[in-house]
Amino acid sequence: MTLLPSWVTSANSADTDFPLNNLPYGVFSTDDLSPRCGVAIGDMILDMARAEEEGLVNLNDEALFDVPFWNEVMELGPDTWSSLRARLTEILAEGSPDQAAAAPLLIARADAELHLPFLVSEYTDFYAGRQHAENMGSILRGGPELPANWLHIPIGYNGRASSVVVSGTPITRPLGQIKAPDADAPSFGPSKRLDIELEMGAVVGMGSEFGQPITTEQADEMIFGYVLLNDWSARDIQGWEYQPLGPFQGKAFGTSISPWIVTKEALEPFRTEVPERSKELLPYLAETKPGLYDIDLEVLMRPEGAAKASSIAKTNYSRMYYSAAQQLTHHAVGGCGMNPGDLLGSGTISGPTRAEYGSLMELSWAGREPFTLETGETRGFLEDGDTMTLRGAARGDGYRVGFGDCTGQIQPAVKFP
Amino acid sequence: MTLLPSWVTSANSADTDFPLNNLPYGVFSTDDLSPRCGVAIGDMILDMARAEEEGLVNLNDEALFDVPFWNEVMELGPDTWSSLRARLTEILAEGSPDQAAAAPLLIARADAELHLPFLVSEYTDFYAGRQHAENMGSILRGGPELPANWLHIPIGYNGRASSVVVSGTPITRPLGQIKAPDADAPSFGPSKRLDIELEMGAVVGMGSEFGQPITTEQADEMIFGYVLLNDWSARDIQGWEYQPLGPFQGKAFGTSISPWIVTKEALEPFRTEVPERSKELLPYLAETKPGLYDIDLEVLMRPEGAAKASSIAKTNYSRMYYSAAQQLTHHAVGGCGMNPGDLLGSGTISGPTRAEYGSLMELSWAGREPFTLETGETRGFLEDGDTMTLRGAARGDGYRVGFGDCTGQIQPAVKFP
Repeated sequence: MTLLPSWVTSANSADTDFPLNNLPYGVFSTDDLSPRCGVAIGDMILDMARAEEEGLVNLNDEALFDVPFWNEVMELGPDTWSSLRARLTEILAEGSPDQAAAAPLLIARADAELHLPFLVSEYTDFYAGRQHAENMGSILRGGPELPANWLHIPIGYNGRASSVVVSGTPITRPLGQIKAPDADAPSFGPSKRLDIELEMGAVVGMGSEFGQPITTEQADEMIFGYVLLNDWSARDIQGWEYQPLGPFQGKAFGTSISPWIVTKEALEPFRTEVPERSKELLPYLAETKPGLYDIDLEVLMRPEGAAKASSIAKTNYSRMYYSAAQQLTHHAVGGCGMNPGDLLGSGTISGPTRAEYGSLMELSWAGREPFTLETGETRGFLEDGDTMTLRGAARGDGYRVGFGDCTGQIQPAVKFP
Repeated sequence: MTLLPSWVTSANSADTDFPLNNLPYGVFSTDDLSPRCGVAIGDMILDMARAEEEGLVNLNDEALFDVPFWNEVMELGPDTWSSLRARLTEILAEGSPDQAAAAPLLIARADAELHLPFLVSEYTDFYAGRQHAENMGSILRGGPELPANWLHIPIGYNGRASSVVVSGTPITRPLGQIKAPDADAPSFGPSKRLDIELEMGAVVGMGSEFGQPITTEQADEMIFGYVLLNDWSARDIQGWEYQPLGPFQGKAFGTSISPWIVTKEALEPFRTEVPERSKELLPYLAETKPGLYDIDLEVLMRPEGAAKASSIAKTNYSRMYYSAAQQLTHHAVGGCGMNPGDLLGSGTISGPTRAEYGSLMELSWAGREPFTLETGETRGFLEDGDTMTLRGAARGDGYRVGFGDCTGQIQPAVKFP
């Protein structure tokens, strides 16, 4: 596919995350405008509340866009999602008869503050990156053998929706119980092994009924779009708490997402197959179309005061073993009702070489082999003041469908009690 | 404490769950009335929407009770909770000048349908019953040794809020992945080891700030009240999925709660100490007042068509090792923001003898030693059509503060695909 030209000239650059081919959905405010729905186009944001008010967009009789979340649009279902995207493409295309009406509704992105694009109903995190799972096995259990269920189940656990924050929100180093391997008893204090996890987040747009299983086709239809997701992790808290019932407070102090929901439709040209199956999956997890996307991903780190951010890892979403549709199917197949606004973290995305590892745990091999930044500093885990940024984009012919940065800076732990 | 007499005569019986000393909060509807807030008193429900409309209760300028949830009242905080309770006690007390105005606002409980009393924001389940943890160790790992962290951490995991349902809602036997110990690969189908867990649920009424730790005193203040909670569990699905990241679909097909929130204030006379500590807790978990309550609990089972329900276990909430305030403190101390409507399951409550075990897994020792009902039938796990009921009450002098039944009947698995 090639670039679709827009009359918003900044959208026609090969470097923008937001060409007309993308049209991702976010929530923004300015000094004058209360938080509301917007669509990114080049360096601008189309004010959807005003577009609706002016009659440029009219999905149904209710006002949908003068609210600080996209959940109400999600609830209208895939046909409406398609109509909306088609209408927005029409309005913003080069030569559009709507240009004169729409141009005054554009806000410079530089002047806007971005908010969480949707109300997170519940948050689930998966563990679907094979290289990551093997690396964690090697680091924590002495060998890369996968858990016995791993090749059969898209393993996941429920996370904490209240900890999901938009890119730019500071992350406070958490307090918690920590036990050194040679200590008799745990102590309480700030995490010393603070980490990131490079993930994609799938946004569930349409719910499923309590008590009713779903197929992978239904699951794929239910997905509204994708965001970048950083599942901040306190490895020392997690290590002491996670047996036998899984991660809890080691993962509950912050999960950052990028501010724009890139729609499934925008990503459609970049669909790609999951890797070859090592063991045959049970039929309920079989997919009828490629479930992953070819999305380049990058992790950057910038210590406080550093002249520049250093790239520390580059990989691709297609490294995952399970797709979001498979994860969602497994999540709902036992009768767990899903709701619009549910967020599914893919699990940490790591490729086969160290340059592709999506967490500091792997990049520094649990701190035993610190890595060096372009600025000369070394790191095992995160220091106070470090800023971490995730970037991602699918690359078309002369354009990219990007996600915008997903960033967060570490704040020192709170003094307590 | 002794019975507080009410002009609602059924509230003065020693057998009612709902004397004036209780005044629990629920949501009800009738053929004529849409779902709204109500207060149980004897065999009746006080229609709070009408009580507000008539000016009998006036918490603030906004209408609070003509909605199908108590979350808005919770958000007003503990001082308002106290004022409301004091005012309701005044209205419903024997000799109240408000009797004439309030009497027409009473609905017979027998004519009402009960709904979830609050919007469940997020649901967390704990594992704070020592006997239960030891039993599960013996059954699953061959010995009663507790996990290394158990005496230090109130172990918990995030559950699924969308699966929380009100008492009376049917529970469909879930489908999922199951692997027999001697099988090479898992299969997909209905759970064959369906179980219950007898728990109490603490309802968080007041939130905490993202990034900010809380003390046990603050945690106790944040709790609005308690319900009975049945954490339905599919042991075969859970057994195959739970390593390494904890329970997921084995716990996601239904969690039943009793329809009335019994307030913390109503339970105040029944506060009791946690059991003796085997290991000293870290200071952040220390409590300044007794954190548990003396609440008698009972589990009943009724096969489909059986003449009567059989009592299969009796125990007491005071068997728990950790209080809800300790659990909530641990949950929030790393900066996880808590919200009004968050629900915390205590963990399965089991006492020291088999007659006090709070799950079928323990009562039938993983199905190896089926137990016999009063009607002569035997059970290892749940059969389709079985109805399970939890009951609970704190016992005062000539009165009880009860919770109402928490019940659910097992429906056959859905045919799928």
